[in-house]
This record gives sequence, structure tokens and C-alpha cells, in this order.
Amino acid sequence: MSTINVTIWNEYLHEIRNPKVAEVYPDGIHRAIARGIASEAFEIRTATLAEPEHGLTGDVLRQTDVLIWWGHMAHDRVEDEIVDRVYMRVLEGMGLIVLHSGHCAKIFNRLMGTRTCQLKWREADEKERLWVVDPAHPIAEGIGEYIELPTEEMYGEHFNVPAPDELVFVSWFEGGEVFRSGLTYRRGKGKVFYFRPGHETYPTYYHPDILRVISNAVRWAKPAETANPTYGHAPELLEPVGKNR
Amino acid sequence: MSTINVTIWNEYLHEIRNPKVAEVYPDGIHRAIARGIASEAFEIRTATLAEPEHGLTGDVLRQTDVLIWWGHMAHDRVEDEIVDRVYMRVLEGMGLIVLHSGHCAKIFNRLMGTRTCQLKWREADEKERLWVVDPAHPIAEGIGEYIELPTEEMYGEHFNVPAPDELVFVSWFEGGEVFRSGLTYRRGKGKVFYFRPGHETYPTYYHPDILRVISNAVRWAKPAETANPTYGHAPELLEPVGKNR
Amino acid sequence: MSTINVTIWNEYLHEIRNPKVAEVYPDGIHRAIARGIASEAFEIRTATLAEPEHGLTGDVLRQTDVLIWWGHMAHDRVEDEIVDRVYMRVLEGMGLIVLHSGHCAKIFNRLMGTRTCQLKWREADEKERLWVVDPAHPIAEGIGEYIELPTEEMYGEHFNVPAPDELVFVSWFEGGEVFRSGLTYRRGKGKVFYFRPGHETYPTYYHPDILRVISNAVRWAKPAETANPTYGHAPELLEPVGKNR
Amino acid sequence: MSTINVTIWNEYLHEIRNPKVAEVYPDGIHRAIARGIASEAFEIRTATLAEPEHGLTGDVLRQTDVLIWWGHMAHDRVEDEIVDRVYMRVLEGMGLIVLHSGHCAKIFNRLMGTRTCQLKWREADEKERLWVVDPAHPIAEGIGEYIELPTEEMYGEHFNVPAPDELVFVSWFEGGEVFRSGLTYRRGKGKVFYFRPGHETYPTYYHPDILRVISNAVRWAKPAETANPTYGHAPELLEPVGKNR
Repeated sequence: MSTINVTIWNEYLHEIRNPKVAEVYPDGIHRAIARGIASEAFEIRTATLAEPEHGLTGDVLRQTDVLIWWGHMAHDRVEDEIVDRVYMRVLEGMGLIVLHSGHCAKIFNRLMGTRTCQLKWREADEKERLWVVDPAHPIAEGIGEYIELPTEEMYGEHFNVPAPDELVFVSWFEGGEVFRSGLTYRRGKGKVFYFRPGHETYPTYYHPDILRVISNAVRWAKPAETANPTYGHAPELLEPVGKNR
Repeated sequence: MSTINVTIWNEYLHEIRNPKVAEVYPDGIHRAIARGIASEAFEIRTATLAEPEHGLTGDVLRQTDVLIWWGHMAHDRVEDEIVDRVYMRVLEGMGLIVLHSGHCAKIFNRLMGTRTCQLKWREADEKERLWVVDPAHPIAEGIGEYIELPTEEMYGEHFNVPAPDELVFVSWFEGGEVFRSGLTYRRGKGKVFYFRPGHETYPTYYHPDILRVISNAVRWAKPAETANPTYGHAPELLEPVGKNR
Repeated sequence: MSTINVTIWNEYLHEIRNPKVAEVYPDGIHRAIARGIASEAFEIRTATLAEPEHGLTGDVLRQTDVLIWWGHMAHDRVEDEIVDRVYMRVLEGMGLIVLHSGHCAKIFNRLMGTRTCQLKWREADEKERLWVVDPAHPIAEGIGEYIELPTEEMYGEHFNVPAPDELVFVSWFEGGEVFRSGLTYRRGKGKVFYFRPGHETYPTYYHPDILRVISNAVRWAKPAETANPTYGHAPELLEPVGKNR
Repeated sequence: MSTINVTIWNEYLHEIRNPKVAEVYPDGIHRAIARGIASEAFEIRTATLAEPEHGLTGDVLRQTDVLIWWGHMAHDRVEDEIVDRVYMRVLEGMGLIVLHSGHCAKIFNRLMGTRTCQLKWREADEKERLWVVDPAHPIAEGIGEYIELPTEEMYGEHFNVPAPDELVFVSWFEGGEVFRSGLTYRRGKGKVFYFRPGHETYPTYYHPDILRVISNAVRWAKPAETANPTYGHAPELLEPVGKNR
């Protein structure tokens, strides 16, 4: 199996501006994830909002098999041109893993076609349990019956996304809500995985099960080497028409 | 059962400009469909591109339970503001039935999140057979095993849409292609049905089975009177948190 | 809209043998549901295990549009011949609503193809909240964001059923589990809805929202009047073969 | 990636009894497939109806990651006990690939919960084209837009299976029918792929694209190493109950 080229994109603002977050992720969420999923099978780079073209140049994207996305407070500052570029690459086959507050990112909204910002949320240090509801799914490989996070931000239904192709995890929250927290979609030739946990003030991206899920999702989302469908005018008939009229 | 308010939107250009089309649909595709699906259960109005706000004012849309959409040569001339308005109404619960070349309409693209313009096509007077693959579906009520159209434009796979929630029809074309030609989706509180047939040069919208499918789809797509989910910050805990830590 | 013929089947043993249950459902769960969903639109009859052929004769089933099923302690006493009969009727188009412990009924197992008995359970007077995750679904019509039951038996994931065609409700339980508690399936021409709540010791089937969901499901599951597909040898060619070889 | 243990099961009767079939598959369909998908990644064995326990002993199945199934004229001669054994292994995680007339096998019927024998068929040397409708799917890796088979048996809709989790291929037949010909399902922890082509009188299992699809499906269907869900009574509360009543 050849190496999978992974790019981890992070808005990288909370960690710089908020000492509480800096304490949890001193080098940024992107680097915490990069270290956490490091493997011989992955060639990992990172990119952030502040870089030219947000670090997502045409070259970088062309060389990316799977893009991981974390954003929160600055969704609007992501340039539409870059969103277009990522969008086209997903439809061409690049995998996309959208984490936590990335539910509100322009790219996720665009791929889903609904107002994906719409969900309930609350910051109250709640316990979260992510129950595996599809134990046959490769994204759940190596995980027990559930993942427990002692404190997390709550996200609650209704989550305004299309019905997923596959539902892998459902979260229970201490305060009384549930959430569909591991969702897969196919868009064009690209695979998309939304994974709920990871508020910036909690050490979620150090949890081995969370990292395992992200690693599994990278493997699942890597491009399939299928032929590119052709589109548009197809003047040639494969079969003769009208013989029996 | 209360009356369903249906608005049939038609670009209405081919019928005016092209005598061949005018011969088939002298009053426009929208009026042919309106007459064809007329029923005591439906209150039908029509709207066209040339009207102010394309006939889709806020008032009209608020009073519309199900919107039927036919467009082809002027997708780009539909104002983004009107597309936004239709989009929001679908997410709020208005049903949307997209016909034939409406696959390329801005509103369909936006709701799907893929480049829905992408498919194969050919005008060669081919026979089409739409096979029912989900005989339990209410949209197929009253239809036999398949609908046969003696001549139609061909649309072929790959059709670049998300996997549908439900697949109701699959088309066979004489020239050698297949197409997923009856597809359902839910987006927010709205139901969406894409139905393939209906090229402007053929009398497809006079065919009783095609009209029956459109009528069925109107009934299926009418809004459910469900409570509106609430979104955003949910400060109140339903259950106390942290007692057992 | 013509009348829908509903048959409510109940094992009817707990209510007779257990005074605690008799207090909650003195006339049996079947009669409580029958009264609770009574409507001009429904013609309702009941049937129980102790009746000849369990009350499900060929005539009764032929006249049944939607069958509601509650069973628990005596799944094994349901005759295979009757299960076969119900199974064939579902494939022909009869709707089936399986309640609570009916997850373990022979008929549900057979239609699902998995070991549907497999789930977690606990009787600990837990609060249950059924969150609506598909607010566009007609089965959720008239329901708010969630239904709250102050005390119920817990059912927890993993629930060993196929991925549903549609997921309408997800339950939160006070003790820490979640459950996919409103699931739709199509089997042949029949529609199947599994709905979780309703342990015999709780007054769940008097709750107006629970009754509303069951009524909605009856309307959703009623047979579509589609043509019967034909199966088997199809000697006749619709099109000539081999002309261009 | 560790080796995948593949067992190819074949009824192996047509090849022995019918000289026309023997000419096409002198060593049996099972050996043709075994040679055709041979790879360092697979450890392949075969099993046939005539062997004791049809070659599917408990030991063999325990050591099988993915089972491929071809049967046609002797479905009834497969012992129920062996069917039970295969069934349990699929629910535990063994992959199952059902080929062509295996649609009517006891094991497929049981896993689907419908009368999967029900479809249309015709032997008229028709051309078949299998169009890829999900170009992102790993089972379509390495395949072009469609696979063309110059002559095959026709299978036509309606195919009485549950709506698949994923639809990968749709077949076009020269004589006028279509068929959903590449379908995925999850049952318990096991993945199931149904693949239509392969009538015994045609050299279909020598076609490189057909073999590529079967190889891809083996990789897709191999067991995920997920924890086994626990089922049944769960007496322990994860969270305290009733504090706030």
C-alpha cells in the first residue's frame, strides 16, 4: 500500500490568542493531530489560515490524498477561491475529514447543501460517550463499544445535514442530548467524514481512540483509483437506434 | 386532507423561440403540466423567468407547499437572490420537484452540493424505459412495471449527484446507457424529488404515467407539520452535570 | 382518502399474569393502543396469541393494511406458519409496525436478516428522551424536538439491525446509553417501522406523542397501490438482440 | 496489510454434467475465479457442494475472512445447518460475496429478509453493460465507465432485495431491461456484496474487469478488527439515575 498524503488544516487562532487553549495545544491542534496519527503509512503536512492561500495552494491540494479540517471562529475569513479549490479537489477524489466546529465551515456547507451550522451547542464540561452503531465499519476499527470523553462541549440534534450515507457513531451527552457524531458521505469521487469531538479547550486530540478514529478515517477516505467518468455531449451511439420502429 | 398549493416554475423560452417546441407545448410546459396534474386536491399556479422576481416573490413562496422546476437554457439568468429564497423555503419544508434539465439549475446544485450538471446526454430520438426499482414507494403508485417513452433525449451515468435517500426509477436507453431517473432527497425539513424525463421537443408531459408520477411526487413532497427544530446556544441543561465526578 | 384497516396484535400475557402490568393496562396493551389511535380514518381490530391462528387468519391478514405488533415473553410460541403468512403479506405490501420488545419477534428477525434480539437492556426506571433526527419525516409530524418519557426500560446500542432506510428518532437514556429508536425499512412492497418505547410496566402507550407517532406510522405504512412486479422467466424480448454483431 | 483468507464456494454441478459448461470452465467456476484473482495478498481455498459439510466445516469458516458463493441448480441441497453456520460467521464479521444466481441461495435470502429469488431472467445471448454509478467506491477501483460483456443471461428489475446500503453498478441489457447489479449491505459485523454477472455458459469469469471487481470486493469485505459489541442484560448503570426527580 502506497503512502497516503495527508494535509491537516487548522485555523490556528484560538491557540495563539487564548492562553487556556494554548495550554492544551501549545503547538496548535494541527500539530497535536499530526503527532497523534503519525505513521509510516502517512506523509503528513499542515496548513493554516494565516499562510498565503491559507497554505492550500493548487500544488498542495494536488498532492493531498486526504485533507483534515479544523476551524471555528474564522470560517468567514477563508477565501471563497480557496473553498472552490478544495471543493473541486473533493469532487475529483480527495478525501475530506471535517472535525468538530468545522461543521460550520464554508466547504462543509457547500458539500452538504444544507445549513450545516444548525445544531445545538453548550459549553458545560459535559461527559460525552460516542457509541459505535456500525461495528462493521472500518472507521470503527480498533475501538470498543464506545469512546468516553470526560468533558466536552455538547452538540445536540437536530443537526441540519443530509441523511448520511453511513452512520458510524452516535453521541450521548450528560446534559440530556444526543448527536449523530460520525457521518460518512460521498460527493463526486470524494469521500467525506464528519467527526464531532474536539472543542479547543479540551485535550480531546490526545485521546488514543479519537486519534485512532481519525487514522482509520484517513485510510477510508483515500482516493480510489477509478477511471474518471466523462460528462457532457455523448454523440456516439453505443447501440443502433430506431431499428424496430 | 387539505389542499396542496403547487407552483409550477418554467423558464418558458424554448416554447417561445423554437417553433418545433411551440408545436408540442403551445402554452408552455408549465401549463401542460398544470392541466395534466389538475385535481381538487391541488391549488396550482405557475411562474416563469420573465415575470418580476421570476414570479417567485416571498409571498408566492410562502404560500407554496410544493414547487415544480423546469429550466434549461437560462439557468444563469435566474437571480441568485431568488435562488437563495427558494433554498431557504426548501430547508423550511417546501417540497421541490426538479424535472429533466433542471438537474443543472442553480437551486438543485446548491441543495445537492455536487456538480449536478455532470451527466451524459444525446439527442437521438431514443426509446426510454423507466423501470420501477422500488415498488413500495408512493411516488410509483398507479404505475406498472415500467414507463415507456417512444422517443426522448438520452441522459446517461455517471450522474454526479449524492447517493439518493431513495431510488425509485432507473432508465434504460435504446442507445446503450442507463440513468438513475427518479431520486429522493431530504434537505432540512424539505423533500426533493428529481425526475428525469421531459425534453422540450417531445410530448412527454402529456403521457399519463409521467403526469401520475408528478402528481404522486407532489403528495409525497408536501410539507410535514413537524415542529421547527431550534438551533444555536442551548444554555439550559436538561439534566444536571458532573454529580458523579 | 379511504379508510386504513389496522390490526393490532398483542401477545397479551403480561397483562393477565402480572398484577403490576394489569394495573397499567387492565384491558391489554392492544386495547390501549386501539383507543389511543382511534380515528375516523382507521378501521381497527385486535388479535392476540391465544386466539386460533393467533387471530391472524388468512382472511384477517388479507383485510389488513397495517399490522402493529407487540410481543415479549412468548416469541417462541408464535407458530412458524403464521409467521410465514405475515411475512408474505408484508412482502405483498402490508405495512408492519413493530413495537418495543417486538425487536425479538420471529417476524422482525426474518424481515431484517440479522439477529435482532441483540441489543442491551436494563430495567432501572430511567428517563428516556426520543430526539427527532429527521424533522422532514411524516412519522414525526406533530411532534416537538423530542418526546420525554419519565421512566422506561433502557435499550442500548449496538442494536443488531441492518442500517435503516431512514432514521427518525434517536433515544437518550439517563443511565448513559443511546439507541436508534425509530427506524424505517422497505421489504418487497411492504413498509416496516420499528419504534422502541413501550415496556409493559410503564404507561407509555397513553402518552399522546407516542400515540401520535404510531398513528403517523400507520398512515406512512399503508400499502401503495402499485402494480405487482412480475418475476421469473421473461421469454419475450422487448428489443431485438444481436443485430449489430 | 496481512493476508486475506478467501474461500470460493461453488455448487460445481453444471461443469460436470453439461459439456457446454465444461468447455467454458473445465476445472469449475471456483478454480477459474481462484486463478483469476490470485494475488500475494490472498490465501485462497475452494469448497464445493459434494464435499463433506459442503467443504464449509467450522474450521474452514473460522479461517475464512471472505467467502465467495456461486450456486444455481442445487440451492435446496445446501444443508440448513451449514447455512446457519455461514450466517453466524457473516454476522460475526466474515465478508460474503454472492455471485449471479447465488441471488437465490438460502444464505442470501436469509441475510436479506426478502424473497431474493424474485427477479426477471432470460437466456438470449444479450449484451450487458455494467455502468459504474458510484465512481468513489473502492469496489469500482481500476474500472472504466462501464464493463461490457458481449453475451450474458439477462436479469431484470424488479429485484426483490432491500434497498442496498450502496449501489455500485447498474446493468443495461440489450433486450430492454435494467438491473441493480452491484450492491453492498452490512449485516451484523459482516459485509455483503452481490455481483450479478456470471452465467455458467459464458466466459464471464475470465474477463479482467469482472475479476478486478471480485478482487476489489474481497478487499472491501474483509473483516474490520472492531471490538465485539456486548448484548443482553446490562445491569450496571454508567450514570446514576433519578437524582433530579
